[in-house]
Amino acid sequence: MTLKKYLLAPGPVPVPPQALNAMAAPIIHHRSPDFVELFSHVKEDLRWLYQTELPVLILAATGTGGMEGSVTNFLSPGDKALVVNGGKFGERWTKICKAYGIQVTEIKCAWGESVDVNQIEAALKADPTLKAVYMQASETSTGAAHDVKAVADLTRNRETLCVVDAITALGVVDLPMDTWGIDLLISGSQKAFMLPPGLAFVGVSEKAWRFNQTATCPRFYFDFAKEKKALEGNQTAYTPAVSLIVGLGEVLKIMRGEGLENVFARHTRLAHATREGMKAAGLTLFPKGTPSSAVTAVNAPDGVDSQDIYKTLRTKYGVTAAGGQDHLKGKIFRIAHLGYADTFDTIIAIAAVEMAITTLGGKVNLGAGVKRAQELLLVK
Amino acid sequence: MTLKKYLLAPGPVPVPPQALNAMAAPIIHHRSPDFVELFSHVKEDLRWLYQTELPVLILAATGTGGMEGSVTNFLSPGDKALVVNGGKFGERWTKICKAYGIQVTEIKCAWGESVDVNQIEAALKADPTLKAVYMQASETSTGAAHDVKAVADLTRNRETLCVVDAITALGVVDLPMDTWGIDLLISGSQKAFMLPPGLAFVGVSEKAWRFNQTATCPRFYFDFAKEKKALEGNQTAYTPAVSLIVGLGEVLKIMRGEGLENVFARHTRLAHATREGMKAAGLTLFPKGTPSSAVTAVNAPDGVDSQDIYKTLRTKYGVTAAGGQDHLKGKIFRIAHLGYADTFDTIIAIAAVEMAITTLGGKVNLGAGVKRAQELLLVK
Repeated sequence: MTLKKYLLAPGPVPVPPQALNAMAAPIIHHRSPDFVELFSHVKEDLRWLYQTELPVLILAATGTGGMEGSVTNFLSPGDKALVVNGGKFGERWTKICKAYGIQVTEIKCAWGESVDVNQIEAALKADPTLKAVYMQASETSTGAAHDVKAVADLTRNRETLCVVDAITALGVVDLPMDTWGIDLLISGSQKAFMLPPGLAFVGVSEKAWRFNQTATCPRFYFDFAKEKKALEGNQTAYTPAVSLIVGLGEVLKIMRGEGLENVFARHTRLAHATREGMKAAGLTLFPKGTPSSAVTAVNAPDGVDSQDIYKTLRTKYGVTAAGGQDHLKGKIFRIAHLGYADTFDTIIAIAAVEMAITTLGGKVNLGAGVKRAQELLLVK
Repeated sequence: MTLKKYLLAPGPVPVPPQALNAMAAPIIHHRSPDFVELFSHVKEDLRWLYQTELPVLILAATGTGGMEGSVTNFLSPGDKALVVNGGKFGERWTKICKAYGIQVTEIKCAWGESVDVNQIEAALKADPTLKAVYMQASETSTGAAHDVKAVADLTRNRETLCVVDAITALGVVDLPMDTWGIDLLISGSQKAFMLPPGLAFVGVSEKAWRFNQTATCPRFYFDFAKEKKALEGNQTAYTPAVSLIVGLGEVLKIMRGEGLENVFARHTRLAHATREGMKAAGLTLFPKGTPSSAVTAVNAPDGVDSQDIYKTLRTKYGVTAAGGQDHLKGKIFRIAHLGYADTFDTIIAIAAVEMAITTLGGKVNLGAGVKRAQELLLVK
């Protein structure tokens, strides 16, 4: 028998059976009344999850498409923007901005740290012409979270947009778009949405729509005004990824049934147990800043290459986690708590990590991490 | 979110994705060339798994149907038979025999013990007219195994059939039908075959076919001679359960790829780790006889009703195990290692049992059982 597979990476994630079944049904046509009916519910449920009164755009693309559109639809070549760069995905904001001729000032923070909001405030004060702050809510490459609320508080009364890549944060932690004044809130299907990859979602504020009217960056497929108009008729501008929308209907139903607070609590609970379990196993956590509840980044113990842990988990134990990226390759490995995950995914993650490190001859307290997680995940 | 579900009962068991996918495909017709082609492979692969040169019958029924047919096709009303009764399924042999007017002598053994083969030998010597010995290879209700080889050695040179309910044993432990001289070997789809319930399989020896010629018990649906004839044309006598046969094709392919020795080793490994884990957790095992590698029966700790453990596992942790049956209800719970199960199913089982007992205020060494299983299931 080939190894049983366990998917514990920060996307894609396991998909609940209700959604798998729904997506396996014969494909419906996207201009049919069935689709329009489904889409009208999906649209409302998305607004609920985004905690916004305004429409949330649905793109047949992955998160990066949503990020690109969140630059091109709101800024013009030559515009100035701040980018919070604390990891691989912070870097991506810079790359996208540069591709469209945006002048970027980076607020760098060391990988694994949360951004110092004072630096952002100082930059905004120094240059009132900055059109946007681009940031991550959860930097997936490092497992650190940034303080979105504090940044939105700074941009709210400025002619500056607060643009948040919440690809691994939406549905994980509370990000009330309207209340906090987030202008663009981006997310993707293969994370807390517990769907396969292929959909990006973007919430857009009134203020952002105002910026949209004068933005001249070239764009065609990711034309947000066109998508907004299509949404009014329960459609997308171009062909939607039909089966993923069908799955989206299912997972949003699950999440609404669960309730927002419980959705967040579930992620928090598993992330906390994972962190405490890894520490009890004798390992150390990578982030020095606020840890993300989406993904936990763990340092490989002395003398063990984290890529070997990643590979041993996959080839000998059937567990797909994630390694480190760029200069963290070999140094850290990452375990996600996203979406359709529960107590025993966490138990498996910690047990497998302890076993893989033991297999590799590394130092770890076999069993101690699982025990700690069991204590924390007990149901009274 | 509703609890994620983990199926760790002694049937039904989890089904591998290849089989689920195949069974979800549009149904083919059972008299079509496609079906005949599939069935010809399935027939051969079943003989491989049964380690027999003779055809293995495939019935649209669960294991009990195979048991009934293994009485009615080979004995006549008034015939005498021995029944090894060491649990719920031993009792079933007696009930089936009595329903058809067979005179039963029971070799009783206490639940959880393995039968004393000397008693069978003495009974066979005392009465040479005994037509059959009915027994279990693995008594699912108690988690104890009986010594099939020793019994087959006794019947081989007598005018007595060795009839083995191997519903939770075939594909778990080595039961070489032809080599050992087992006359009827019964199994079912929802156990080591890792399929949904709905198929029974019966291997029939030359000697049994000879008995069949004079057997007068009434029978119609379970007419083994008719099934044998149908098999020659790659068909079944009545409509086959088509989607299950399609699934059967997939799981037999998986098992052939794995190899018989590895199939057995997989079950042995998980059963051993479960037993050692439960002991390390401070629990005691129910069987005093040879423990089955299909299912482990564990005594509830003092002051805890095993039905509460079963219910807590299911309702608070999403884990479906099994309780005790009849007089063992409230005393034991059972965890299976059947079919599509691996290291982490065992880890989950032990972690969940430790947590459920802790939830109930019972005495258990939280984490100690998991640690022991981790040690035993380490990959070098």
